[in-house]
Amino acid sequence: MNEGRIQKVQNWLKQEGHTFAFIHTTANVFYLSGLYSDPHERVLGVTVLAEGEPFMICPGMERSQAKDAGWTYEIVGYSDSENPWAKVQEALASRGVTSASSVAVEKETLPYARGEKLLGMFDGAVLVGAEELLNELRLIKEESELKTLREAARLADYGVEVGVAALREGVTEMEVLAKIEYELKQKGISAMSFSTMVLFGEKAGQPHGKPGLRKLQHGDFVLFDLGVVLDGYCSDITRTVAFGDLDEKRREIYDTVLAAQLKALEASKPGTRIGDLDVIARNHITEAGYGDNFPHRIGHGLGIDVHEFPSMSDNNDGVLREGMTYTIEPGIYIDDIGGVRIEDDVYVTADGYETLTKYPKELQIIK
Amino acid sequence: MNEGRIQKVQNWLKQEGHTFAFIHTTANVFYLSGLYSDPHERVLGVTVLAEGEPFMICPGMERSQAKDAGWTYEIVGYSDSENPWAKVQEALASRGVTSASSVAVEKETLPYARGEKLLGMFDGAVLVGAEELLNELRLIKEESELKTLREAARLADYGVEVGVAALREGVTEMEVLAKIEYELKQKGISAMSFSTMVLFGEKAGQPHGKPGLRKLQHGDFVLFDLGVVLDGYCSDITRTVAFGDLDEKRREIYDTVLAAQLKALEASKPGTRIGDLDVIARNHITEAGYGDNFPHRIGHGLGIDVHEFPSMSDNNDGVLREGMTYTIEPGIYIDDIGGVRIEDDVYVTADGYETLTKYPKELQIIK
Repeated sequence: MNEGRIQKVQNWLKQEGHTFAFIHTTANVFYLSGLYSDPHERVLGVTVLAEGEPFMICPGMERSQAKDAGWTYEIVGYSDSENPWAKVQEALASRGVTSASSVAVEKETLPYARGEKLLGMFDGAVLVGAEELLNELRLIKEESELKTLREAARLADYGVEVGVAALREGVTEMEVLAKIEYELKQKGISAMSFSTMVLFGEKAGQPHGKPGLRKLQHGDFVLFDLGVVLDGYCSDITRTVAFGDLDEKRREIYDTVLAAQLKALEASKPGTRIGDLDVIARNHITEAGYGDNFPHRIGHGLGIDVHEFPSMSDNNDGVLREGMTYTIEPGIYIDDIGGVRIEDDVYVTADGYETLTKYPKELQIIK
Repeated sequence: MNEGRIQKVQNWLKQEGHTFAFIHTTANVFYLSGLYSDPHERVLGVTVLAEGEPFMICPGMERSQAKDAGWTYEIVGYSDSENPWAKVQEALASRGVTSASSVAVEKETLPYARGEKLLGMFDGAVLVGAEELLNELRLIKEESELKTLREAARLADYGVEVGVAALREGVTEMEVLAKIEYELKQKGISAMSFSTMVLFGEKAGQPHGKPGLRKLQHGDFVLFDLGVVLDGYCSDITRTVAFGDLDEKRREIYDTVLAAQLKALEASKPGTRIGDLDVIARNHITEAGYGDNFPHRIGHGLGIDVHEFPSMSDNNDGVLREGMTYTIEPGIYIDDIGGVRIEDDVYVTADGYETLTKYPKELQIIK
C-alpha cells in the first residue's frame, strides 16, 4: 500500500467534488494497495472516499493476500453466495455515504453492468472517468518503481541473449521462443509482459507476426520482441540480428532503423515535446526512403502495464518530465524481405535519459 | 464464419424486438466470425441486425486477417486517426437503422465508455444483455468443435506426460513447468489456456498456489493443472501423482478424490441435473471426513473460453444435454500436508459421456 497515492486520489475527489472513486483494474488496484490480483469475473476494487477511510472489496479467499500485500485499511470480503455490491453500499453507508452526486470509475474498462450496479445505489448519480488522474499519478516513477523496472529490463536483456545463443540453421521460431521462456522461468519469472515474438526472415516483415514453424536460413533477419513481469512491473525489448551475412538492402534497413532509434533517444530529456520523438525518428526513416514502411508510433509508456500512458505518437503535445519511463522502438517492415525493429526501455533523468535495456545494438551477424 | 450462428442471433433479435446486437468479446467474435483476435484497446466487433446484412468493425490492419478467417460480409476498417463509432453509425444508417429502441451487448464485459458511445447514437435507446443467448448457443458443441476440443485435450495429456517424466529429486516447480511449456511450444502451441500450475508437497494444498522454487522431495504430492489453446478451443487437465511412497493419510486423500471424480463422471449423461454432479462428489468427500477441504465447485463449462457457461455448482438446476463439454475436478486440500485434484474434460454423448482427457488416473508412484 502507498498512503501518499491514496491521499492524492482523495485530494482530487475533494477538489472535483466527487463523492468517491471505485477503482477496479488490476494495475491501479496494485498501484494503490500493493495487491496484484486478477479476480477474473469476481468483483475486486479499492474504494477511496473524499471524506473517510478507504476500503477494499474482494473475494473472501483473497483477504489474506491483500493483507500480506500491505493493505492496512478495511478489507470487505464476500463469499460466492453473497452480493458484493450490497457489501460496498454497506461499507459506504457506515462511512456516512448514503447519497452521491458523481462517482469516479475507470470508465474505459469498467463493465457496463458494474456501472449500472454502482449507479443503482444512488439516485441521480453519474459516473466520471478516473483514468486521467491515475495515468498522471503513475506517469512519474518513484525510486522503488525504477529499481524494479531496471531489474525487469535486465531480465529482458537476458531473454535476448538466450535467444541469440539458440540460433542455428534449421531451428524454428517456436523452438527459440520456448528456449527463451524456459530459461526465464528458471530464473523465477512466472509471466511474460506479452506473447514473446521470435520472427525469422520475411516473417520479421510483419509488425504483428506470429511465431511458428518457420526455419532459420542464412541471410535471415531474426527479430526478438519480449519482456517479463517482475514484481508487478514490465519490461519490453526488441532486437534484430542477422543470421549469416546480409545483402546491401537489408544492411541499409538495419542502419536506418538504428540511426533513427539513436536520434530519438538523444532527444529524450525533460522539456522535449513527446510527439517530437516520433517525428525525429520518422523524419530520418522517411529521408532514407522508408517512410511508408514505418506504420506504428515510436513507442508507449511502460510501467505496471506494458503499454501504458502516454502514447508516444507524433500528435502528443505533452512534454517529457524526469521520472517518465517509455519505449523507443522504430521499425521498417518490407514484404518478402523482412523487417528490423530496435526497442529500448527509457527512463528520463534530470538532464537526459538512461536506457534500462542494455543489450548491444550494433548489427550482430551470427555465423 | 458460421452463417447458421449469425442467423440464430438474427432470429433472437427479431423475436425480442431488439434493433441490433454489437458483439465485442474475443470469444464471441470468434464464434460468429471465425476471427480470433484480441484488439487490445481498439474497437473490434460484429454487428448483427434484426433486418439487414451483418458487418464487422475492426482496425484497418486486421481487415485481411478477418477475411482470411472466413468472414464474407462487409468489413468496416478504420485507422487510428478515425472514429470507429462514427463508422459503425454510418454502416448502420446505410442499412436503414437510424433509430433504435434496444441494443444487445455483452453487458458483463462491454466497457462503460463504449456503452455510452452506442447509446449516444440513438436517443432513448437502452442496452440489454446478449450473454444469455450466446452462452446458450455455445453450450452445445458442433462436431467440428468437438474434434478440436479432443485434439486440445490430447495435447494437455501430453503436457502431463512431459511433466511426470521431468520429476526427479531436487527439481523445482518452475523447472518442470518450463519443460512442459517448452515441449508444447515445440508442438506448435502458442498459448496455454491459463497459467500452468506445477505444485509440490504442501504447495499442492493451496487451490490457487503459484509455482515457484520449491524443490521436489520424496513423499510429496505433485499436482499438475494445465491446458492448451488450439485453434481457438481450450483444454484443462489436472493430475496428481506421488513422488516416492505416500503415507497412509495421503493415500486415503488420493483414493477419496479419485472415487468422487469417478462417481461424478458416472452421473454425466443427458437429463442429469447439473448441480447433482457437484453434490454427488461432495457427498462422497464429506462422508470420508474431508467436506471442509473441498472449497470449490466441481467444474465449469469448457470451449472457446477455458471457464465458460455453465458453472457446475451445486445450485445449478440446469440439466445435462448431449453436446455439452465441461470439467469434473474435485479436490481435497490440507495445509502442511498437500492436496489432490483430479480433473477431466467431459463431453456428454447421447446416452452417457466421453472423457476427452485420457491420461491415467490410478495413483502413480514415481520412484
